[in-house]
Amino acid sequence: MAGVLYLDDLTVGDRFESEPYEMTEAAIIAFARDYDPQPFHVDPDAAQDTFFQGLAASGWHTAAITMRLMVQSVPFANGAIGAGGDLRWPEPTRPGDRLRLVTTIEDIIPNRSKPGRARVVALCQTLNQHDAIKQEFRPNLMAWKRGVDPAA
Amino acid sequence: MAGVLYLDDLTVGDRFESEPYEMTEAAIIAFARDYDPQPFHVDPDAAQDTFFQGLAASGWHTAAITMRLMVQSVPFANGAIGAGGDLRWPEPTRPGDRLRLVTTIEDIIPNRSKPGRARVVALCQTLNQHDAIKQEFRPNLMAWKRGVDPAA
Repeated sequence: MAGVLYLDDLTVGDRFESEPYEMTEAAIIAFARDYDPQPFHVDPDAAQDTFFQGLAASGWHTAAITMRLMVQSVPFANGAIGAGGDLRWPEPTRPGDRLRLVTTIEDIIPNRSKPGRARVVALCQTLNQHDAIKQEFRPNLMAWKRGVDPAA
Repeated sequence: MAGVLYLDDLTVGDRFESEPYEMTEAAIIAFARDYDPQPFHVDPDAAQDTFFQGLAASGWHTAAITMRLMVQSVPFANGAIGAGGDLRWPEPTRPGDRLRLVTTIEDIIPNRSKPGRARVVALCQTLNQHDAIKQEFRPNLMAWKRGVDPAA
């Protein structure tokens, strides 16, 4: 599936769903040691007395895994390229959560000055095995029609 | 400095600046292989013909390093805990960029139903050595007054 969809192929309402990915305690701690070394992300015992009342994944770990699931499941021909968007973590990812990504195309906005290009608004919901929303990200993605050079 | 500031200590306009962190080509590729395996993030040659016209760090790598710099430089007593916010990458991080984080407290909004707690709006700007803005994130952070239990 990777890399097959051009702007020509996209329609508002298109939906993509990834395979699940299990967040283990070991992976949560390893990511946090490198990027978010706070007690509630690296120490299951110390985490009990914090806001999270137990080990919780860094939101940035949930975000990084979401990107990995996006690369696997949203096959834009020139890549999944975003300039940012609104990012929310309604609740933390916990050890044992099996995350999957559901991406829905919400809007396609043609670029007026650059023909053959568009901004694609996507809703990226990261859910666990109980369909609890662990992350919601609404990026602006770039898309090109067939034959348009993204490096031009 | 870690872990010394309570809600009592924060004022709108407070500013925190981190030490720099250099993004190497090796680190960019290693992060992207795990979390964002697209040609422009993992292959310097293949990256030439893409939108980025050369190797670029995953935005999530810039975000993860930004969090690391935040843990080092924004010493909230109960941790740097956010529920999300608006995230933008005006331009990609490149190999050799020396990133530093400048955090400014923009607003402090007391929680009406839970005394002693507040939502702190921060502007987190991730700059390189030329002061180019590589990421802008405006999270809602949680803060507690001295003596208030964040696990309660």
